[in-house]
Amino acid sequence: MRIHIQNPVNDPLFLFSRDMWNAAAARAADVGTGHEVTIGDTDAEFADGMAQAEALITEIGVVADKFPCDAPRLKLLFITNAGLDRLAPFDWLPPGVLLLNNAGVHATKAGEFAIMSVLMLANRVPEMVTHQRAGHWRKLWGVVLAGRRITVVGLGSLGGATVMQAARFDMHVTGVRATAMPHQNCAEVITTAGIDRVLPTTEFLVLACPLTNATRGLMNRERLKLLPRGAGVVNIGRGALIDQDALCDLLDEGHLSGAVLDVFIPEPIPEGHRLWSTRNLIISPHTSVDDPKTYNPRSLDLFFANLRAWRDGKTPPNLFDPVRGY
Amino acid sequence: MRIHIQNPVNDPLFLFSRDMWNAAAARAADVGTGHEVTIGDTDAEFADGMAQAEALITEIGVVADKFPCDAPRLKLLFITNAGLDRLAPFDWLPPGVLLLNNAGVHATKAGEFAIMSVLMLANRVPEMVTHQRAGHWRKLWGVVLAGRRITVVGLGSLGGATVMQAARFDMHVTGVRATAMPHQNCAEVITTAGIDRVLPTTEFLVLACPLTNATRGLMNRERLKLLPRGAGVVNIGRGALIDQDALCDLLDEGHLSGAVLDVFIPEPIPEGHRLWSTRNLIISPHTSVDDPKTYNPRSLDLFFANLRAWRDGKTPPNLFDPVRGY
Repeated sequence: MRIHIQNPVNDPLFLFSRDMWNAAAARAADVGTGHEVTIGDTDAEFADGMAQAEALITEIGVVADKFPCDAPRLKLLFITNAGLDRLAPFDWLPPGVLLLNNAGVHATKAGEFAIMSVLMLANRVPEMVTHQRAGHWRKLWGVVLAGRRITVVGLGSLGGATVMQAARFDMHVTGVRATAMPHQNCAEVITTAGIDRVLPTTEFLVLACPLTNATRGLMNRERLKLLPRGAGVVNIGRGALIDQDALCDLLDEGHLSGAVLDVFIPEPIPEGHRLWSTRNLIISPHTSVDDPKTYNPRSLDLFFANLRAWRDGKTPPNLFDPVRGY
Repeated sequence: MRIHIQNPVNDPLFLFSRDMWNAAAARAADVGTGHEVTIGDTDAEFADGMAQAEALITEIGVVADKFPCDAPRLKLLFITNAGLDRLAPFDWLPPGVLLLNNAGVHATKAGEFAIMSVLMLANRVPEMVTHQRAGHWRKLWGVVLAGRRITVVGLGSLGGATVMQAARFDMHVTGVRATAMPHQNCAEVITTAGIDRVLPTTEFLVLACPLTNATRGLMNRERLKLLPRGAGVVNIGRGALIDQDALCDLLDEGHLSGAVLDVFIPEPIPEGHRLWSTRNLIISPHTSVDDPKTYNPRSLDLFFANLRAWRDGKTPPNLFDPVRGY
């Protein structure tokens, strides 16, 4: 197969190399050989590659910049990002091209970031940081996780890794997803429509779902107010899942004890924005689920898993549904 | 047995109640019944209780304040703290009285706080908080824990819980203790004397040992400098284990990427102290290992375990050695 890899622009930590490709191809021996592979960095290399490529591996910024484009032989487009919401609507996708995302690449890192965030809320670290910023010593005690109630919205790659970690710490886990199908690490799974019932007993709320028409604005002001006093919030999904101003209000008023957020509106957060001075808020710069040391190798492993399924006439596991939005 | 419980002064989260005692006695049915129990809050109640008590359960502040005192029948002194370094030398202890500490009560909370701290360092949260304090959006990427090298000093209650968590996250764990006896959750165990050899490859250093003559000042400036650039430090033991000024220097210079500290010299940290403005430092107010919801019930469970051993003529598991210092 003719495969072109186009490297990201201005993202030196996430460049693909020939060695990286060869190592991944060796790991996926049955489907890794017999390909003609080009790796491009420039516009000219992209155009050259696309004249022949049957598969393209690249990140979302390149796709947003280059498509639609001349790609007469393209069959597979593997985007090395999981959330593709910023590419909607998907009318730029050439007919007959299978769109694959990178769901799964973030699972381990996401699970670790999420349980870290829950531990930080249980140990009241956001409040400690607020006191520290003011230079005041104030005793504050946290709790152990066993038995505490966590609600995780989304049970895909990120949410699945989150509930796995939460279950390991013996938390009482409620999962929320599009269908109420049970999950091995959840005591209960409910649909998004039923979320109002569980919010009043939720001590920790983790948002780990894609941004779709069904989830945009899910945690509006009314729903945030349903959380009990002292609850904490984590968001590793997308900023638009939540009413950010309402969240800041509830933190400043002390209704919520803390929040750890990795996603915002807008990004980057402008200097002087109220988020920078909101009480008991920890800001992570939208890097929670990415580990540069493992990201590209793991992405290529996922590409080969999808290539294998496609070769065998099966549905590629990362086939993206533009209508559903994930 | 005549048992007196003296409540702490000015510590309303950690008061013992009759209900708490009854519940613990029911959990330890074989050794929980047949006792005459008094619970005191005032000086007069302490004096009344001690006139008869064969066992006293109380916290370190009461002991520091009241002993030596008139306690003619006392056989067991159970102090609801683990680190008793501030009571040294132990010449106030009446002859023939067994001194028991509360080692073990903190294990679950300590393990969770320690792995939270390591996750925070791996995810570069201290640096994120520094950028947040300045109101600057700066992309920073962390790593997953699997395969990363952690060195844990102390393999008692706190350190044992720490290495258990680290092993669950597939870290490469080196344990440090007084003897090089192997530990199930450590790839390697070395003695304190050998620590210089492992520091240059240690990515995360966790101090979880008691303060004794052997550990005071263990992490001096020279040893801290042996840590590689980018390493992170956690201290849940005692402030005097480390050269605090050297640590602050190495954080401010950027040699160390972050630190999460729960213990300091002095405590409380005075307003205006350099610790409040040291870069990439997270300050927890010496509460990391205490969970008020479970502390007293768990303390009573430990008391009964020791009472059972004593009744059966065995060495109580929490017998404190004043010479060794733990």
